[in-house]
Amino acid sequence: MSATMAASRKATVTPHGDREIHIERIFDAPRDVVWRAMTERDLVAQWWGRGNKLVIERMDVERGGHWRFVEHSEHGAHGFEGRYREVTPKDRIVQTFEWDGMPGHVVLDTLTLEDLGDGRTKINITSLFMTAEDRDGMIQSGMEGGLNESYAALDKLLNTLNQA
Amino acid sequence: MSATMAASRKATVTPHGDREIHIERIFDAPRDVVWRAMTERDLVAQWWGRGNKLVIERMDVERGGHWRFVEHSEHGAHGFEGRYREVTPKDRIVQTFEWDGMPGHVVLDTLTLEDLGDGRTKINITSLFMTAEDRDGMIQSGMEGGLNESYAALDKLLNTLNQA
Repeated sequence: MSATMAASRKATVTPHGDREIHIERIFDAPRDVVWRAMTERDLVAQWWGRGNKLVIERMDVERGGHWRFVEHSEHGAHGFEGRYREVTPKDRIVQTFEWDGMPGHVVLDTLTLEDLGDGRTKINITSLFMTAEDRDGMIQSGMEGGLNESYAALDKLLNTLNQA
Repeated sequence: MSATMAASRKATVTPHGDREIHIERIFDAPRDVVWRAMTERDLVAQWWGRGNKLVIERMDVERGGHWRFVEHSEHGAHGFEGRYREVTPKDRIVQTFEWDGMPGHVVLDTLTLEDLGDGRTKINITSLFMTAEDRDGMIQSGMEGGLNESYAALDKLLNTLNQA
C-alpha cells in the first residue's frame, strides 16, 4: 500500500461506557518501527504535531517519567503534558494526558501495539476520563480530526523509516 | 480552645460512591488565615510535611500552575505533585494530586473553606479517583493517619499566626 493510500485511512474512535474512548488504527510498519516512532524524541517531533512545529520540552519514557510537548501553529502555542505510569517496550504504554487549556482535566491513556504478523501493526488505545463530561467534551472538541492528522503524519514517517 | 486540644482533633474521612472520599476538619482560625496557610509557600512548608522537612520545588497557585513537594524523612524522600485547575481566593481550590510512588494515578481534590462565623473555619475536601481500586487503595494506605499528622501541624501553625 502506498503512503498516500495509508494517509487516507481513518482511526476508529468509539465511546465506551460513561468515561472511555476506544481508538484503533492500523499502520503499515512492523511493531518495532512503530514503537520507535512513538517513543524516540526526534521521531515523535516529526508526526505528533500534525505538521506543525512541535517542541518536546520533556520526554522521559519510563515509569514515573514526565512528558511535555508544545505545538506551535499559526493559531498560537498549545502545551500538552503528562506522566508515564507503565512502559513495556514494543508492547504497552500507560500514561496521563492533559492539555494546558483545561488544566487538571487528566486523561489516562493505555496504548498497546499489536503485531498483525504481516508487517503491519495495530494500535489500540483506551482513554479513561475523570468524568463523563470530560469524555463527551473531548469527543465534541474535534479530537478525532486532530488524531487523524497526526496519524497521517505518522504514516509518512513510517514509510520513510521502512525504506531506511 | 488551646492548640493542644485542637491538635487532638481528627478529620472526618468518609468514602462516598465508588470513587470518592470526603474529608472534613474544623480549624480554630479565621478563613483568611487558613487560606494563607494553604497557599503561601513559606507557610505550607511548615505543616504539609507533618514535621518532616518539606522542599517545595514548584508552587504556582493559579489556574494551570503546577505544584511539586518533596518530603524528606528518615525513611527517604517522597515526591508529590499536581496542577491547579481552579483557584478562587479564600474560597476554593481544585487541584490534582499524584504521588511519585504511583505515577499516573491522579486524584482530583476539590477543597472549600467554610467560614463558621465564630473565628473558626471548616475545610471540606472531595477527592475523586480515576478508579474504585485507586480510591480503596488510598484508604488502605494509611492516608488518614498522615492527614491527621499534617492537620495537627497546621493547628500549631494557625495558633502561631493567630497570635501574630
